[in-house]
Amino acid sequence: MSNVANVPDIILEPMVRSAIVEDLGAAGDVTTRSVLPEGTRYKAQMRARQDAVVSGMQVASLAFRLIDPDLIVETVVADGTACKTGDTLMRIEGSAASILAAERVALNFAGRLSGTATLTASYVQELAGAKTRITCTRKTTPGLKLVEKLAILHGGGHNHRFSLSDAILIKDNHIAAAGGIKQVLEAVQRNVGHMVVVEIEIDGLHQLDEVLQTGGADVIMFDNMATEDMAEAVKRIDGRAKTEASGNVTLGRLREIASANVDYISSGALTHSAGTVDFGLDF
Amino acid sequence: MSNVANVPDIILEPMVRSAIVEDLGAAGDVTTRSVLPEGTRYKAQMRARQDAVVSGMQVASLAFRLIDPDLIVETVVADGTACKTGDTLMRIEGSAASILAAERVALNFAGRLSGTATLTASYVQELAGAKTRITCTRKTTPGLKLVEKLAILHGGGHNHRFSLSDAILIKDNHIAAAGGIKQVLEAVQRNVGHMVVVEIEIDGLHQLDEVLQTGGADVIMFDNMATEDMAEAVKRIDGRAKTEASGNVTLGRLREIASANVDYISSGALTHSAGTVDFGLDF
Amino acid sequence: MSNVANVPDIILEPMVRSAIVEDLGAAGDVTTRSVLPEGTRYKAQMRARQDAVVSGMQVASLAFRLIDPDLIVETVVADGTACKTGDTLMRIEGSAASILAAERVALNFAGRLSGTATLTASYVQELAGAKTRITCTRKTTPGLKLVEKLAILHGGGHNHRFSLSDAILIKDNHIAAAGGIKQVLEAVQRNVGHMVVVEIEIDGLHQLDEVLQTGGADVIMFDNMATEDMAEAVKRIDGRAKTEASGNVTLGRLREIASANVDYISSGALTHSAGTVDFGLDF
Amino acid sequence: MSNVANVPDIILEPMVRSAIVEDLGAAGDVTTRSVLPEGTRYKAQMRARQDAVVSGMQVASLAFRLIDPDLIVETVVADGTACKTGDTLMRIEGSAASILAAERVALNFAGRLSGTATLTASYVQELAGAKTRITCTRKTTPGLKLVEKLAILHGGGHNHRFSLSDAILIKDNHIAAAGGIKQVLEAVQRNVGHMVVVEIEIDGLHQLDEVLQTGGADVIMFDNMATEDMAEAVKRIDGRAKTEASGNVTLGRLREIASANVDYISSGALTHSAGTVDFGLDF
Amino acid sequence: MSNVANVPDIILEPMVRSAIVEDLGAAGDVTTRSVLPEGTRYKAQMRARQDAVVSGMQVASLAFRLIDPDLIVETVVADGTACKTGDTLMRIEGSAASILAAERVALNFAGRLSGTATLTASYVQELAGAKTRITCTRKTTPGLKLVEKLAILHGGGHNHRFSLSDAILIKDNHIAAAGGIKQVLEAVQRNVGHMVVVEIEIDGLHQLDEVLQTGGADVIMFDNMATEDMAEAVKRIDGRAKTEASGNVTLGRLREIASANVDYISSGALTHSAGTVDFGLDF
Amino acid sequence: MSNVANVPDIILEPMVRSAIVEDLGAAGDVTTRSVLPEGTRYKAQMRARQDAVVSGMQVASLAFRLIDPDLIVETVVADGTACKTGDTLMRIEGSAASILAAERVALNFAGRLSGTATLTASYVQELAGAKTRITCTRKTTPGLKLVEKLAILHGGGHNHRFSLSDAILIKDNHIAAAGGIKQVLEAVQRNVGHMVVVEIEIDGLHQLDEVLQTGGADVIMFDNMATEDMAEAVKRIDGRAKTEASGNVTLGRLREIASANVDYISSGALTHSAGTVDFGLDF
Repeated sequence: MSNVANVPDIILEPMVRSAIVEDLGAAGDVTTRSVLPEGTRYKAQMRARQDAVVSGMQVASLAFRLIDPDLIVETVVADGTACKTGDTLMRIEGSAASILAAERVALNFAGRLSGTATLTASYVQELAGAKTRITCTRKTTPGLKLVEKLAILHGGGHNHRFSLSDAILIKDNHIAAAGGIKQVLEAVQRNVGHMVVVEIEIDGLHQLDEVLQTGGADVIMFDNMATEDMAEAVKRIDGRAKTEASGNVTLGRLREIASANVDYISSGALTHSAGTVDFGLDF
Repeated sequence: MSNVANVPDIILEPMVRSAIVEDLGAAGDVTTRSVLPEGTRYKAQMRARQDAVVSGMQVASLAFRLIDPDLIVETVVADGTACKTGDTLMRIEGSAASILAAERVALNFAGRLSGTATLTASYVQELAGAKTRITCTRKTTPGLKLVEKLAILHGGGHNHRFSLSDAILIKDNHIAAAGGIKQVLEAVQRNVGHMVVVEIEIDGLHQLDEVLQTGGADVIMFDNMATEDMAEAVKRIDGRAKTEASGNVTLGRLREIASANVDYISSGALTHSAGTVDFGLDF
Repeated sequence: MSNVANVPDIILEPMVRSAIVEDLGAAGDVTTRSVLPEGTRYKAQMRARQDAVVSGMQVASLAFRLIDPDLIVETVVADGTACKTGDTLMRIEGSAASILAAERVALNFAGRLSGTATLTASYVQELAGAKTRITCTRKTTPGLKLVEKLAILHGGGHNHRFSLSDAILIKDNHIAAAGGIKQVLEAVQRNVGHMVVVEIEIDGLHQLDEVLQTGGADVIMFDNMATEDMAEAVKRIDGRAKTEASGNVTLGRLREIASANVDYISSGALTHSAGTVDFGLDF
Repeated sequence: MSNVANVPDIILEPMVRSAIVEDLGAAGDVTTRSVLPEGTRYKAQMRARQDAVVSGMQVASLAFRLIDPDLIVETVVADGTACKTGDTLMRIEGSAASILAAERVALNFAGRLSGTATLTASYVQELAGAKTRITCTRKTTPGLKLVEKLAILHGGGHNHRFSLSDAILIKDNHIAAAGGIKQVLEAVQRNVGHMVVVEIEIDGLHQLDEVLQTGGADVIMFDNMATEDMAEAVKRIDGRAKTEASGNVTLGRLREIASANVDYISSGALTHSAGTVDFGLDF
Repeated sequence: MSNVANVPDIILEPMVRSAIVEDLGAAGDVTTRSVLPEGTRYKAQMRARQDAVVSGMQVASLAFRLIDPDLIVETVVADGTACKTGDTLMRIEGSAASILAAERVALNFAGRLSGTATLTASYVQELAGAKTRITCTRKTTPGLKLVEKLAILHGGGHNHRFSLSDAILIKDNHIAAAGGIKQVLEAVQRNVGHMVVVEIEIDGLHQLDEVLQTGGADVIMFDNMATEDMAEAVKRIDGRAKTEASGNVTLGRLREIASANVDYISSGALTHSAGTVDFGLDF
Repeated sequence: MSNVANVPDIILEPMVRSAIVEDLGAAGDVTTRSVLPEGTRYKAQMRARQDAVVSGMQVASLAFRLIDPDLIVETVVADGTACKTGDTLMRIEGSAASILAAERVALNFAGRLSGTATLTASYVQELAGAKTRITCTRKTTPGLKLVEKLAILHGGGHNHRFSLSDAILIKDNHIAAAGGIKQVLEAVQRNVGHMVVVEIEIDGLHQLDEVLQTGGADVIMFDNMATEDMAEAVKRIDGRAKTEASGNVTLGRLREIASANVDYISSGALTHSAGTVDFGLDF
C-alpha cells in the first residue's frame, strides 16, 4: 500500500492561506463578531449530500487548522475513498467563530475537488477490465493545478505532465516551426537529457512512419484520429512507444476509443468541466 | 456609459503571475526551448469555437503581457460582449516562444470566466422583462473570486457580498446562537455602522413578522421557501427591505421564482458549475 | 455580549511578520547575541505609563508568539478596555533574547493603536447621551488600516467603509463627471446590487431635494455644512436615509454638530493624528 | 550636492503595492466603475493646504504609476523642500478612474511623511547655529520605517540605527544580564567586528568612568539625565566618543539640552507623534 | 538552432528581486546617496578577468533593469558562449547610483553561474568524441536551482530531474521499504503515469537481473560501481534502459568511466563546488 | 558566554520555505508517494563524512520541522563546533516520507554553510596568536547572505557590513565622482549620522595623509597594497582608525599580511569559493 497522493501541507499552505484571506476579506467575519456570544463552541460534521468519490479532505482540514490551530479536526473519510449521501466526512470541534470563518473555504475546496475525483472515477469505472488508463491535461483551474491533479489520482486516474517544464509535448506548430517531424525529434534528442519524457502529437497515420523511423518519442498522442486509425497505429507502433488518444473524449465514447488498445485516454473535461459535489456542514 | 467591471491590472497581477509560474513550471517551457528556432515570431488570434458571452479578456491580455512585455496584444471583443463561433477575440503578435508559454494560461482563464458569464447571461435572458435580478454567492473558486464576480457582471448579473467582511448575512445558526431573531438583529444594530448592508435569512413566513417588527434588516433572504410563501412575504414586506430567493435555483425554475416578485435570485451554480467555453489560439 | 472586534490571527500575521522582519533587520539583534549569556530568561510585564483605552493587545501578543512560539504570553487587559497608569496589560515569560527582539514592535503597535482607541473614546464620551455616533474615514496609516479600524471599535466608535470596494461614496467629482445628481444615482441603481451601501456627499441644502427625489442613497453626507443647515437637512430627510456630518470636526465642536441630530460624525483625525500612548516593558 | 535621501523604487514598491491593494479592496473602486463615463480623463494637482516641509513625493508618485503606468506624473516640489499653502506639489494627468483610485493612498503617504519632515525641520530650526544634531529612534510606524527615516532626512535630521541588526545599543538590561559595564563592553569587543557602531546608554555620571576605562563605546547615550550632568559628562568624555541625549525631549527643551554640548538629541516623537500635513488633490 | 536555455524573465524575477533587496538592505545605498553628486551618469562594462564559459548574463541584465528601468543594458556575450580574459560581456549606461546599486548582485550571479558553466564545459571537453553525456544532480544551491541548471546547459551539459516531483528515482531505502526491487518497480508501474521517467539505482551487478526482469525502469543508475562492472551492466542492459554512472566522479576519472559506455555521468560537484569566475565592472 | 550567532527562526523561515518548495517541486515527492508503504517511520542520523566546523544546523533543523512539525529533531553538534568524520550531528525521527522530502534541502544547506565555516576556521587558525582578524565581504551567494555571514561567525571570523545600507564604504569611483578624498569625506560627515561606520579604500600611501587630515574615517582599507606599504600605513594611522587589508588574499599569504599589523583581513573567497562539506543521512 502506497501513499498514492499525499503531499506535505507546506506545499498546499500558500494556496489555502490565500483562499482564506480572500474569503475572510479585509476585516474578517463581521457577522460573527457582531452577533455571536463570546466563547460559543460548536461540534460540526462535514456531510455528503450526494454519493461521491472524495477529494480535498487534506485541503479542507488545513483550512480549519490555519484559521485556528486550536480546532480539533478529524478526517473520517480519506481522500480517494467513495462516500454515500449522509456520510460524515470530517468532524470539527472548537470555537464557533473559527468554524464559521473556515466553513465556506473548506466546502468550496472539498466540493470542487470531489467533483473532479467523482467524474474521474466514472471514467475509470467505464473502462473497468480494459488496459486503457484515464489521464488529465493542462486544462486545469489557474492556481489549483496541484490539487486538481491529486483529485485525478483520488478518482483512480493518472496524471499527464504537470507543467511546461517537466515533459516534452511536441505539437503541430512545433513540427512546423522546426521544419518537420525528423528535425523536431532530432532537436529534442540533441538538447534534452534522459530524465524527460518525450511525447509527440500526430493527427493521422501519414505522420506515424516518420516518427517511428526517427525514434526518440516515448509517447505518441493521436489527436482527434478515427478509432480505426488509432487501432492501426497501435499495431504499427507495437510497444515501441506508449500511446494516448486525445480529442472529442466523452464518457459515452470511452469504450469505443479503448477498443483501439491505446494505453491512455486524456480528457480536459475532468478538470475544466467537472462540476461540484454537494457537501455541507451540520452543527 | 460606465466602466461596469473594470479593475486596475495591479489587483489582478498576483493571481496571473501565480498562474503563469504554475504552468511554466520550475524550468520554463522545455519543449519550445529545445525545438523552436531562435527568433521565431507568430501572429496569433484567439478565436471562439462556440457562441458565448465573453469574460476574461483583461486577464488573458495581462497573461501575455506579463510573460513578455514586448508582445503586441489587441483585445478585439471586450469583456461583457456576446461573440459568435469563429469570432476573433484577441490578436497577439511577437515572439513565438512567449505566445506558446502564455497560451494555456490565457485560454484557461478566458474559457472558464466566459463560461460563468455565458451561464449568467442565460439566466438574465430568461428573466427578460421581469424586475427580478440575478446574483451570485460565495461559492466561488478559491483564488478566483474577484474574476468570477466580474464575470457575473459581464453576463449581466449582479454581485452578492464579496467576503465575510463587507456585509452582514445572518443565518439560522447565528439566530440560534444569539437567542432569537430579535436578539440577533439588535446585536447587529448595536455593533455595526451605517456602511454595512444587513441581510437575514428566513426559512418560512413564521419568522417574517419578528424580523419586520425588530427592523434593521436591509435584505431578507428566503431560503428554500415555496414560491407562494415568497410571494406572500414580498407583499407583507411591502418595500421595507429588499428580497432575495435562494435554494434550489435552476434555469427552468427562474420564471416561476420571479413570479413571487422577489428583487433578487441568487445562484451558486453560476460560479461553481458553469463549465468552460471553448476558445483556441490560431497561428 | 459579542466579540466586537475579534479577527483570526491569520489575517494579522503578514502585517506582524513584516514589522518584525523590518525591526530585526537582515541579521537579527546583534546586541543581544553579542552580550546576553545563553539561556537568560525574563519575566516581563507590559505596563501603562498613562491612562488609556487599550487596543493592539492581540497584535502585540502575536508579535511575541511569532518571534518565539515558546514564549508564554498572557493578555491581562483585553482590547477595548480602559486602563490606568501603572496597570499591567500583558505578561511575557521566556527567552530574554526573544522578548527583547519583539519588545519594540509590540510596543510600537500597542502604543499607536491605543492612541487611536483612546482618542476615539474621548470623542464617544463627549457625545454620551446623544444618538450621534462617531465613525472613522479612509485616512488611515498605509498598511495598518485593519488594526486602526479595530482600534476605532475598541474605542467605542464605528467603522466607515474599509476600502473603495465595499461601499459607494459619491463625491462632487463623480457628480460632475456623470452629469448631475440624478444621473449619478441612476447609474448606481442600474449597476450596483443589493449588498452595497450607497452614500452621497452634498455640500449644501440646494442639492438635497434632487437626492431625495431620485432616491437610492442609503446615507447622505453633509460636507462642511453649517450646523443649522445640517439640522434642516436632517428634518427634510426624515429617516429616508442615514446622515453623516463631515469636515472641520474637532472634539470641541462635537456637541454642536450632534445638535443637528445627524446619525454619524466622521473624523479623519481619529486615525491620522491620534498620537501614541506610552506603554513600556518592565523586567 | 548629494542625493541625500534617494532610494530605488524597487525598495519602496512592495510597501506601496500593499497600500494600494489595501485601499482598493478586493473588488476595486466600485463607485468609479459604476458612475464614471468610460474614457473620462483628469488633470489633477496635488496642493498644499498648509505650510510644510515636503516628504513622500517619491512614494506618492510611485502610487500613481503603479496603479496606472500610463499616468503622466510630474513632481513639482522635491522631497526635502519647504512649501507654502497653495503650492502645487505634483501634477498628474490621465485616466480619471486611475487618479481617483490612487488619490487617497498617495495623500495618506504624503501627508503623514510630510508631517514627520515638518516636525523634524522645526526641531532642526530650533537648534540653528548649535552643533547639536537631531536624530530619530526605533519608535517608527510598523511597516513604514524606511520612509519615516527618509522623512527625518528630508526635514534636516539624521538617522539613528535602522534596526536591531545594524548597530549595537547596550541598555540597562543588557548590562545587568552581562554582569556589569566592563563585562558587556568586553563581550562586544570580542564578538563584534569593525563595521558596527557600539553605543551604550548610561543613566548617571556614576556609570561614565567605567565606560571610558573599558573603552569600546563609539557613542554614549545619556538617558533622562539632568542637563548639568550631561554637560559634565561631555567634558569628561572629551571627544573620545560621540554623545546623545535621550528622554523627555520636547521642542521647548531643545536649546537647554543642546547647551550641554551633546552631539545628538534623539526624539521618538518625530516619528510616533508627528501628525499629518493637509494636502489635497484638485481636479 | 534552438533557444537551448532561455526562460522568460518572469520566472527569474522573484529571485533577482530578493537578491537586490538583500544587498541594498533596508535603507538603500547609504554611501552613494551621501557622496555622489546628483545626476552623475556612468558608462560601464562588465569584463572578464579570466577565461570562462559565460552564464548568468540574463540574470545580471535583469538585475540592472529591475533596479532602474531607465538603464540601457546591452548583453555582448550570450549565455553559453566562451570568453577570454579582457572580453567585454555587457555594457550598461545610465544613472551612476543605479549601476553601483546593482553592481555586486549582478557580479555575484554572473561569476557564480559562469563558474558552474565553465566547470561543466571542462567535463564536456574531457569527453569530446565519446557518446557519454555529463549531467547534474539535486545538490544545487538552495534558491538558485533553476539558474544553476541553466548554467549546466550553458556549459554543454544536460540536466537531471529538477525536483522530487518530476521524475522517479528509486534508491536503496525505497527498495528496502517496499520489500525488494520487484515490489518497488511494480508499485511504480501501478501508481505512475506515462509522463514520468523512472530511474532506479543499483550498487552491484547482483541487482541488475531483477530490474531487467521486472521491467519498468527507463534509466538505471550505477552507484559507486567499479568501471568493469558498469561495462558489464551496459552490455547486459543492451539498450533496454539508459544508463548513468554516479559516485566518486572527478575530472580525472571521466574518460575511464566513459569507457564503460554509460549514457550519462552525473556529478554533484558541478553545482556544489564549482567556484566563482572573476568578472568586474569598469567605469 | 554569548549566543554568538543565534537568530530567530522567523528570519530564516522564508529562505528555508523557498528552498523546500523549490526541491519538492510542484507535485511533491512522486517517488516516495508511489512506493513507500503508508506509515513507514525512520530514525535517521545526519553524519559527518569528513572533519569540519559545523554551520547550518539551525537551518537544517528548521527544514525538517517545516516539512513536518511532527518530526522529532535533535541537534547534537551546535553551529560553531568542530566535528570529526563519523560524528552524528543531528537525529531525526518520524515519518519516512517527511524525512526523505527534507533530506536533500537540509544537507544542501548544512554542507555548504559548513564549507564556509570550515574554510573560515582554517584562516582563523592560520592567524592564531596574531591580533589580526578575518572578515568576509559582500561576495555572498544571492539569497543566502545571512546564513553565510553566520557561517563566518561559526568559523571564528567576523562580519563585514551586511548590505549597502548599514555602513559607508568609499571606493575609488566615489572619490572620483565627489572630486577628491577631502570632498568625499566632508560629504559623508555632513550627511551621515553617528550610527554608521565610515570606511574608505585607498590604493597607496599617497592617499593616506589626505584621509587622516580630513578625518571622519573609522576604517581605512588597503586595496591590493604591498605588505610593507600596509605596515607603514598602520604606523602612520597610529590607532586613529581601524585598518583592513583587501585583495589577493590567500591562506598562504595570511601570516605575511598580518605581519603588517592590520586589524582585519577581508576575503571574498570565504563565501564565494568555500566548497561543500560532505554530510549524509543514515537510516
